[in-house]
Formats: sequence, structure tokens, C-alpha cells
Amino acid sequence: MMAHKPLLYIVKLGGGPIDQPEALEAFLWSFANLALQQDTTQPIYTLLVHGGGKLATELGSKLGIAQQIHEGRRITDSETLKVVTMVYAGYVNKTIVASLQAKGCNALGLTGTDANLITAQQRAALPIDYGFVGDPTSVNTILLDTLFKQAITPIIAPITHNKLGQLLNTNADTIAQTLAVALSSHYSVELVYTFEKNGVLADTNNPESVISTIDKATYQTLKEKEIIHSGMLPKLDNAFTALEAGVASVRIGKADALLSLVKGQAGTTLTHA
Amino acid sequence: MMAHKPLLYIVKLGGGPIDQPEALEAFLWSFANLALQQDTTQPIYTLLVHGGGKLATELGSKLGIAQQIHEGRRITDSETLKVVTMVYAGYVNKTIVASLQAKGCNALGLTGTDANLITAQQRAALPIDYGFVGDPTSVNTILLDTLFKQAITPIIAPITHNKLGQLLNTNADTIAQTLAVALSSHYSVELVYTFEKNGVLADTNNPESVISTIDKATYQTLKEKEIIHSGMLPKLDNAFTALEAGVASVRIGKADALLSLVKGQAGTTLTHA
Repeated sequence: MMAHKPLLYIVKLGGGPIDQPEALEAFLWSFANLALQQDTTQPIYTLLVHGGGKLATELGSKLGIAQQIHEGRRITDSETLKVVTMVYAGYVNKTIVASLQAKGCNALGLTGTDANLITAQQRAALPIDYGFVGDPTSVNTILLDTLFKQAITPIIAPITHNKLGQLLNTNADTIAQTLAVALSSHYSVELVYTFEKNGVLADTNNPESVISTIDKATYQTLKEKEIIHSGMLPKLDNAFTALEAGVASVRIGKADALLSLVKGQAGTTLTHA
Repeated sequence: MMAHKPLLYIVKLGGGPIDQPEALEAFLWSFANLALQQDTTQPIYTLLVHGGGKLATELGSKLGIAQQIHEGRRITDSETLKVVTMVYAGYVNKTIVASLQAKGCNALGLTGTDANLITAQQRAALPIDYGFVGDPTSVNTILLDTLFKQAITPIIAPITHNKLGQLLNTNADTIAQTLAVALSSHYSVELVYTFEKNGVLADTNNPESVISTIDKATYQTLKEKEIIHSGMLPKLDNAFTALEAGVASVRIGKADALLSLVKGQAGTTLTHA
């Protein structure tokens, strides 16, 4: 019998809801409820990873900084890095933290740079030069253990660094997956990707066509039939990698349905079998 | 005989050096050296509070946001609050943290919002409506104790909140003084205000005319003779308030002379007597 691990929810908040104040507020109420729930049989911890929505793109445009996206990933020159650091680590992170504090959730905002929480390596310039974009190389799980024990909820912005003084823009889905895998040896990690849709859809034109469960074999079939394509592919690839590396469950669904999502009553659940 | 308290340096980095990459780099090397020094007889801790320099003003101008300063304090409407949160808590804070990490100092960036580190009350709108500007009301010293014990150096951006979801712009000198007073019951706090000048000057046109020591009586005389005036007055008022509230020493001087400053070999030292 396995030792009983504390339960840890790692929630990724996607771009869509961040751009809509009402959707963000609804999500943050749900998240605060999740973080404040008590269980007499085990400790429950929560952690939030957020993106930046369209705010970084908007600010870059206002400042006249040309922006390029390649396969859903932002090409980050030095001016764009400054913009995403300001928006993700500054405005979005602190707005979320202040809102959660007002809801009774003891939130604390971090980036990967802080106490080396997530170090990263700048991506090679070939075949595509993404600029100051990093892929995670290590996680400081001791810092997170300490914060959880103090009933602090970490709120993480997707900026990392290379330990040589260079900040790096890093995909928030990848950060959520990296944290989930690194923490799964000491926690039973439930990874939840939230965004503006109800889940993985069988028909992208029908918001109600949520596929409730996908296992690895089904995923192959859905890919071959091109039912799942474009932006959803890296998200699901990340999710199955996390499951194989020891994460207990992965769910995908709408941000404001978080409390139903974690119970498997809404959205898509990915399973090993 | 008093119990032996651990030594804590609280360093405020002023605006001038933040705007000059070479001056900032020189300061951060000195600060990392200070943070990494060891003493076999007692633990030594360090904490940095930074401002935002002219970057917030520049970004506001580029975005076409009208800005007003009254008696050295920024009048903060909602758009200006967004700008200062982006610049102070995002760009400046994370740039400093990444640079210190590269120098071996285990820095972690925070605002007053994070885990309620510094809560504040929005300033009354009369006689001057400063907008979203706050005056500190409480300090979470337990969080700082925990970080110090993990050999983490907190790097604090001057943004606080009112616990009701509202971020507030807060004077960085005031934050340094508030932290120094709150922590002085458990630490022997040496408070160091650094900026672009060599110290408090007897003649503002002569950078070498540093007044090496000022006690409260001398301060009154210097004020009456108008040798000390304008921007230096609130800084010194803050400093004497801190001394009276139990802070062990207050020094004022040039950012890149930090290591000489803390030894009393440069700058101005304020004394009780």
C-alpha cells in the first residue's frame, strides 16, 4: 500500500478569462473556495499558474513593439521580454494576489526567478529563434513545501531565469506541468487546465460537445481523425506526459466551473488506461 | 543586559541608480556581498526595498497617461497604478532578483500584497487626493522570519494593498522605515537609505560636503538654517522616527558605496544622542 500523500491541486488559468473582469472574478471565487476547503483526513494544498491573456499583446502594440507568434508561442525579443515581465509578473500577478487576499485566500505571487523556483535554459535559436524563451530545467520544491506548510497559496507567473541574470518567457502550460511532475513524488497532484471552453470538444462549433474522458488510445484515434488539432495538441501532449510522470489526474475545462471540474462533474478528464 | 538579537540590514535602493544600468550593477554586487557575508558569532540577514526610478514616469508618458507629482509623491489614478505595478513589481523587481541570483544571493521578490506582507490604508482624499496611495498599517513579520531562516533575501517592491482587493502605491522610504520598526523587536536593524548622492550634504552644490553624523539636536539646527530642505526632509523625518522606535542605526549615502556605508566609513550616520 502506498503512503498517503497530501493532496495538491495545481490549477492553470488560461488567457481567455484573464481578459474578462467578470470571468476572472468568478474564477477567483471558485479558486479561493478550493484553496480554503478543509479535509479532516489529509492536508489539501493549492497552487495557481496564470498566463497573461491579451494584455501583453495590447501593451506591446500601444508601445509600438512588433510582435510575432509562432505555433502559439510568442517570439520574445528584449523589448517584448520587458513587456511580458511587466504584465505577467507585475500587473496580472499582483491583481490576482490582491483579489484572492480579499477572498480570504492567503496568496503569495512568485515567478520562476524568485528563490530559483523554476530555472530554465534559453531555447536554441534553431530551427526557430524564439528569443528570450526558456524551457524549465529545475524546480525548488523545498520553497513550495515551506509555503504550503504556512497555509500560503503560491500564485505563479510564467517568467523563469537561467541563473546567469537573464529572465526568460516560459509557456504557462509547461510551467504547470513541470511543477506537477516535480511535486508528484511528495504530493498526490491533481492538475487542472482551465480556459474559456467547456473542455476538449468533439465539435469545435458545439460548446456542449465535451468529451468527458480521454485515455491514451482514444487520444491517438482523436488525433488521427483530426478531431483534436492546433492549439489543443501541445496542451494534451503536456497532460499525458504529466500523467506518465506520476501526476494523479489531469482535467481540462472552463475556468468558472473549477469546483465541478475538480470533482469530474464537468470538463474533460484524462486517464492513464 | 539585552538578549543578543540577529543583525538585519534593511537597505533602501533609491531611484537614481535604478535608471543607470552600470550604477545598478555596482550596487547589486555590493548588496550581494553584504547578503553573503558570514559571521560566526551571529546570523546576519539582509532585505532590500527598491523604488522604480524614472521608468514608471517614462512608461506612463509613452502610454499617454498624464502624471502629477505633489511634494515628491506621485498622484496615482487607476491607469498610473497599473503602470507602477507593472514597473515596480514586474520589471524592476524581477530584474533585480535575477541579477542577485546570478551573483549567488538567494533573492525572492515580494510586494506588500503577497501573503499580506504589508497592508495599508488608502490615504484620505483631503487635503490632497493622491488617488490609490496607501500608508502602511501592518507587517507580516512571520513570513520574513521564515524566509530569513531559509537564507532567502526578500526584495520588496513598494506596492501594498488594503485587504479588500485594492492595490496601493506606497512610498518606498516609508516601506523601509515601517519594516525596520516592525522587525526591530526581534532583530538589531541597521537601516540604510541609498541614493545617487554621497550622503546628507552641507552644500548641495558640493558632492564632497557630506555631514558624517547628525543627531536630533543638530537636525533641528540644520532645518532652521535651511541647510537641509525639500526632498531630504521627509527622508530624515522618517529616519529619526525609525531610530526613536527602536531601529539600531540609520545611514544615508551613495548606492555603490554600500559596503563602506554599513561600516560608517562613508555617508551620513544618524544618531539618537
